[in-house]
Amino acid sequence: MKLKLSGRAKLYSTEALKQILSVLDKPDLISLAGGLPAPESFPLALIKKLTKKVLDEKKELALQYSATAGVPELRNTLAEWINKRYKTKFTADNILVTTGSTQAMDLIAKIFLDQKDKIVVEDPSYLGALWAFDPYQLKYLTVESQADGINTEALEELLKKEKGIKFLYIVSTFQNPTGREVALSKRRQLVSLAEKYDFLIVEDDPYRYLRYQGEAIPPIKSYDKEGRVIYLSTFSKIFAPGFRVAFAIASKEIIDWLAECKGSADLCSATFNQYLVNEYIKGGYIEKQIKKNIRLYKPRYHAMLESLSKYFPKSAYWTEVEGGMFTWVELDEKVDSSKLYFEAVKAGVAFVPGVHFYAKKDVKNSMRLNFSNVSEAKIKKGVKILGNLIKKQ
Amino acid sequence: MKLKLSGRAKLYSTEALKQILSVLDKPDLISLAGGLPAPESFPLALIKKLTKKVLDEKKELALQYSATAGVPELRNTLAEWINKRYKTKFTADNILVTTGSTQAMDLIAKIFLDQKDKIVVEDPSYLGALWAFDPYQLKYLTVESQADGINTEALEELLKKEKGIKFLYIVSTFQNPTGREVALSKRRQLVSLAEKYDFLIVEDDPYRYLRYQGEAIPPIKSYDKEGRVIYLSTFSKIFAPGFRVAFAIASKEIIDWLAECKGSADLCSATFNQYLVNEYIKGGYIEKQIKKNIRLYKPRYHAMLESLSKYFPKSAYWTEVEGGMFTWVELDEKVDSSKLYFEAVKAGVAFVPGVHFYAKKDVKNSMRLNFSNVSEAKIKKGVKILGNLIKKQ
Repeated sequence: MKLKLSGRAKLYSTEALKQILSVLDKPDLISLAGGLPAPESFPLALIKKLTKKVLDEKKELALQYSATAGVPELRNTLAEWINKRYKTKFTADNILVTTGSTQAMDLIAKIFLDQKDKIVVEDPSYLGALWAFDPYQLKYLTVESQADGINTEALEELLKKEKGIKFLYIVSTFQNPTGREVALSKRRQLVSLAEKYDFLIVEDDPYRYLRYQGEAIPPIKSYDKEGRVIYLSTFSKIFAPGFRVAFAIASKEIIDWLAECKGSADLCSATFNQYLVNEYIKGGYIEKQIKKNIRLYKPRYHAMLESLSKYFPKSAYWTEVEGGMFTWVELDEKVDSSKLYFEAVKAGVAFVPGVHFYAKKDVKNSMRLNFSNVSEAKIKKGVKILGNLIKKQ
Repeated sequence: MKLKLSGRAKLYSTEALKQILSVLDKPDLISLAGGLPAPESFPLALIKKLTKKVLDEKKELALQYSATAGVPELRNTLAEWINKRYKTKFTADNILVTTGSTQAMDLIAKIFLDQKDKIVVEDPSYLGALWAFDPYQLKYLTVESQADGINTEALEELLKKEKGIKFLYIVSTFQNPTGREVALSKRRQLVSLAEKYDFLIVEDDPYRYLRYQGEAIPPIKSYDKEGRVIYLSTFSKIFAPGFRVAFAIASKEIIDWLAECKGSADLCSATFNQYLVNEYIKGGYIEKQIKKNIRLYKPRYHAMLESLSKYFPKSAYWTEVEGGMFTWVELDEKVDSSKLYFEAVKAGVAFVPGVHFYAKKDVKNSMRLNFSNVSEAKIKKGVKILGNLIKKQ
C-alpha cells in the first residue's frame, strides 16, 4: 500500500538534521549540539513538594479536562506576574496557555496563513519555528541578523517592496541560534514598522531570564499599542520542559482565535501541569529558580566565550552574547560546516551546522554552540578540539 | 486594526455550541450535556503514590524534553499491553504518544488532507473530530449509523461513486454521540472495503473499556493486515483526562509521518505525564481501575435506560447501548431539539442538541444524553422533566 500524503506532508524536512543528531549517541562525545536546559537545573525537590500540594488542594479538579484557553487561575497568575515585571496591563483574557511554545507557533500559522502567504524571519532563525511554519506552504522572506538584532533598515526596504506580509517571527532576546538581543531602539522601531506596514509580530522570548551580563530590556510586546504583537514564552527554561507549559500574550481577539484553534488541536493543555506552574509562580519560587539557573549557567557561559577566544582562529567571528544558551560562530566563507561536522564528531565533539537555521538553507559556514547543558571542563575541551580542526582547514 | 485571518480560520464553527454551553452555569441545573468522566472516578490516592514514585525513580529524566514519538518505555509498555489484550504483534515502533486523541486527529488531517480532499464520517459523528477536521477545508461524505454501527452497504455504494477518499473516521465502540457499537462482522467488512477501495480507517476507541453489558469484541485494527487502520485511544476515560495522555497505533511508516508532524505541533507530549501512565499500566493498576469505573457508571447507565423507558413517549427512539457514556434520542421529525434545549434549561435540564454531531448540520430532531457524570437521582429527575416536555410538544 502506498500512502497518499498531503502536499503539506512533503514539506517536513528534518531528515538532514536527524542524520546529524543520530551520531550523538557516540560514547564520550562532547555535545555542544543540544538545545536542552541542564537537568541539574530542574528544581526536583520543589516539584515533589508542589505536586503534593496541587493534588492535596485541587484534588480531582487537577485531573479533569480544563478550559481550552488555560486554567483560569494560571491565566490570572500569568497576567499578574507579567504586569508586575513589565508594568503592562494584561488580564487573563490576554493569556493563552499552550502545550509548549511550538504549539503556539502552529496555532498562529493555522489561523493566519493561507498557501503562499508571506512571513518574514531572520537569517538565521530558530529552526523549531521554521519546522512549525514549513508545512503551511508559505513563502519565507528573510532579513539579516546584526550584532544588535534584526537589520531594521533592510526590513523596511523589504516591506516597501513586498505587500501583504502576514507577520514577522523574531526571537527578541538571546536568540536561538545566535544568542543576539534586539536593541531597545530597534524594538520600538519594529512596532512602528508593524503599524506603518500593517503586519503582526510574533515575539518568541524563551531565554530572556537567563541573563549573565548587562541590563534587561522590555519585550517588544510592551511597546505594542494596537495589539500587533503576539508574545510567546515558556517555563521550559526556567522550570522544567517536561511539563510542556508555555503561554502566549496577545489581544483578546487574537487569543480567542488561537483558543478556538487550540480546541481542535489538543482540547486543552494538561490541567495538572498548569496548576503546578501556577503554584510555582504564586509561591514566589520562580524568582529564586531564575537566580539558581543563572548561577549554574554563568560559569559555562564564561567558559564558552573564553575558550572561543583562546582556541578559535582570529578569522572566525562569534557572537559576544550576554545570556541564553547559545553562541554562534561564522567561519571562513569557504568552510562547509556540515562537512566539518562529521570530522568533528570523529574527533569527539558535536555542534549544529548553521545551515539548518536559514529558511532557504543557503548559508553554510556557521555553527551553533550550546553551553547550557555541558560542564565547563567539557566546553573547554570541546572548543579546543573544534578550534584545532578549524585551524587545519 | 483588522485581523487578516486564513481561509481555514473562518471554518472554526463552535459558536452555536458555545452559546448552548454558556447557559450550563445555571445553579441547580441537571446537566446531561457533558462529555466528562466523573471526577469521583479518578484514582487520586494512586496518582499521589505514582507521582512520588516517578519523581523518586526517574528524577530529572521525567522533567526533561523527551522523544517526539513518546517516552520509549511507555511506547513499549503500550505495545505489550495492547498485544496481551488483543493477541496483536505491535512493537514500540507502531505507537505514537499524543497530547489527547484530538491531537492525533489533527496530525492525521495534516499529513493526509489537502484542500477539497474527501473523508467519510458517520451521521452522526463525534463533534470533536469534526472540529479537528473542519479547518482542513475538506469535503465530508456521510454514511448513516445503524443499530449495529455504520451502514456498510451504503458505505460501499458511496465508495463506488466517489473516488479518492482519503479515510473513514469512525468511533467503533460505544460511539460518541450514539453509544452504538460496530458489529463484529461489520468490523471485518470495513477492513475489506478499505483494501478493496484503497482508503484508510481512523478508528477512534476511547470508550471500549466502559462496558456494562455483553461481550467485548476486538478493535477493527486487529483485523488490519495492510496497515490501513490508524487506531486511537486515550487514558482520559480510564485514568484521568487532566494528564492529556493518549496514543495512536499504526504501521511504522504512518507513525513516523505522524511523529514528524507532531514535532512541529508540540515537540513532545509532557514527559512526566507519560512516565506516570507507564507506571499506571506496568503496576497493573489499570485493570483494577477499569473495574472500579464500571462499578461507578453501571448504576447510572441503568438509571438512564430505565428512566427513558419510564418517562419518554413511545414515539421517541433511543439507543439501547451496552457501555460508554452516552445515549442518543431521536424524536419526532418535526421537533427541533435546539429549540427544545432552551425550554429544557428553563425547566432545569440540559443536553446537547443532536444537530452538532452531523457534519452537514442537517438533522435536527435528536439529542445526546450523558450519564457518566450525573448521579442516579439526577438522571431520573432530569429524564422525567425532559420526557414531560417532549410529551407536551
